[in-house]
Amino acid sequence: MRATVIHAPHDIRVEEVPDATVQQPTDVVLRVLRACICGSDLWAYRGESARQPGQRIGHEFLGVVEEAGSEVAGFSAGDLVVAPFVWSDGTCAYCAEGLTTSCPRGGFWGSVGSDGGQGEAVRVPFADGTLVKLPAAAASDDRLLTALLALSDVLGTGHHAALGAGVRPGSTVAVVGDGAVGLCGVMAAKRLGAERIIALGRHQARTDIARAFGATDVVAERGEAALAAVRELTRGEGTHGVIEAVGTEQSMRTAIDIVRDGGSVGYVGVPHGSGTGIDLDAMFDRNITLRGGVAPVRTYIPELLPDVLDGTIDPSPVFDLSVGLDGVPGGYKAMDERTALKVLIKP
Amino acid sequence: MRATVIHAPHDIRVEEVPDATVQQPTDVVLRVLRACICGSDLWAYRGESARQPGQRIGHEFLGVVEEAGSEVAGFSAGDLVVAPFVWSDGTCAYCAEGLTTSCPRGGFWGSVGSDGGQGEAVRVPFADGTLVKLPAAAASDDRLLTALLALSDVLGTGHHAALGAGVRPGSTVAVVGDGAVGLCGVMAAKRLGAERIIALGRHQARTDIARAFGATDVVAERGEAALAAVRELTRGEGTHGVIEAVGTEQSMRTAIDIVRDGGSVGYVGVPHGSGTGIDLDAMFDRNITLRGGVAPVRTYIPELLPDVLDGTIDPSPVFDLSVGLDGVPGGYKAMDERTALKVLIKP
Repeated sequence: MRATVIHAPHDIRVEEVPDATVQQPTDVVLRVLRACICGSDLWAYRGESARQPGQRIGHEFLGVVEEAGSEVAGFSAGDLVVAPFVWSDGTCAYCAEGLTTSCPRGGFWGSVGSDGGQGEAVRVPFADGTLVKLPAAAASDDRLLTALLALSDVLGTGHHAALGAGVRPGSTVAVVGDGAVGLCGVMAAKRLGAERIIALGRHQARTDIARAFGATDVVAERGEAALAAVRELTRGEGTHGVIEAVGTEQSMRTAIDIVRDGGSVGYVGVPHGSGTGIDLDAMFDRNITLRGGVAPVRTYIPELLPDVLDGTIDPSPVFDLSVGLDGVPGGYKAMDERTALKVLIKP
Repeated sequence: MRATVIHAPHDIRVEEVPDATVQQPTDVVLRVLRACICGSDLWAYRGESARQPGQRIGHEFLGVVEEAGSEVAGFSAGDLVVAPFVWSDGTCAYCAEGLTTSCPRGGFWGSVGSDGGQGEAVRVPFADGTLVKLPAAAASDDRLLTALLALSDVLGTGHHAALGAGVRPGSTVAVVGDGAVGLCGVMAAKRLGAERIIALGRHQARTDIARAFGATDVVAERGEAALAAVRELTRGEGTHGVIEAVGTEQSMRTAIDIVRDGGSVGYVGVPHGSGTGIDLDAMFDRNITLRGGVAPVRTYIPELLPDVLDGTIDPSPVFDLSVGLDGVPGGYKAMDERTALKVLIKP
């Protein structure tokens, strides 16, 4: 089969790899219908996150079950399913609590020895714990299929950020980061009842999506000027919650600056770079909460799925470029150069 | 009147200062019956927190109202009252929400131009917002009066930490810090229903109090060994919540190390020293929440007071040395050298 392989920073290739096969009785093999490139894949692409040469890549995908192991109870060949960005056994204490990302038998697609999502097929460990079934009819609805793909990461991650930011009906929320996760954070905050949603961003194509997703205000300034602008919009106080969807020192600093006293920063930007940007003295004096981390999206899919299916929310606009498998290296380049927001892959 | 004045690091004196007087119609003047020295006062004593020469000091006290301003509605001469460690107006949006420490008109006892608690009397701004009335009968009960003094800071701060750590019935909790706040954190965690409370500490006089307050286990190790010991006690996972009641880089590092995935660190140790001890990568991977800050104890007094009055909880054992006003400099020395846990002052 063909799949995306990372050989070195900026060296992403699509090449022949061994076919995905059922190796454990709890596995399924899934034929990929839709996959995509994540902002966090760029850290590997740029060499900011270490990868061994030859590792697969891609952790967001949905598709059709091709073969199910003998102990798989919930899925059989032909089922349309979506995979969250980590697999998990569905039976441990953490899975029972919903923290599937801490499952001791869980793992990340594309880690050494596992398939990645940016390929023709994937071996899915612990299929019963990991996958979620989708209505078969969705397979013939291109727009819906794309929207459902967002359940594998960005929509659930935006939801996790909104929960971390403590969003509830009537909240004011600011969103730091105009990538797909930040935009889904806007959507999730709106869905949870936020009254005012301030999107920080300066690229109009992106802030237009933010507005379509529910942002009531856009702040194009950065740093001190962004702080002043957000305070201006919030009686000088800042917002009840802030979604931090970037992961850099500067973005965390901004998030803590603009949150209201007693408020929460929902952090889902994968930390990268040298410093944390956390001013603990300021957090202490102002009773700021920091809550978030890697999103247990498997837990959120059943809650978010009905709203996607009935069109209450439609995250599909975050995908602004579509490629076939051969176009994946070009897709990385486009996202790296910010000419694409998020690249959809149709293998 | 006589009051404690800080002139320079390690230069604490009790001397004549201008009498406390009603200056605003919302003030009261309070005659101090009990005050004490806080671990955070030591940062000023040691020069780790800046003070202007001549500033007053002390922020925990209770006493009797001597004179009330014309606009004070809730208090009159003779009332026994306790003061939280910051004053607050009781009327702003933050006060209404319970975040009294963020009141724009609030302030800290001993800040420039204000009285401190370690003296004969204190001018209390915004008395109606700040003070809480106590039963008159408590004035003649020495043990109870001492227990009630803990409401001004350490008990409410311990409660804030326990809330920050997310303690609920059945929780496992670890407490980093064997000072009065850490010990009150043990008490607060027990009160909120924690099932297992692991106190980290190596001074038996203190860990004995921890056990009396509800600790089920004591870990004397530090650093890596402490982590191993806590994991050993918790099926390798760590505790659901951790109370961080020290405020150093090392204590925060330990707190984040020993918390279970998905858990919360309730941070109430006043940050001091060069680094934060926050490993954001570890927090991200394990979905750790950091929640706390300066405790809005004014908000907690009405909830905690009945339990102190009826003896359900008795924080008085945290005071292990009692001095008169002349003994205050010696009290600082004793706490600085850790020969005293917390010094009670009877002016």
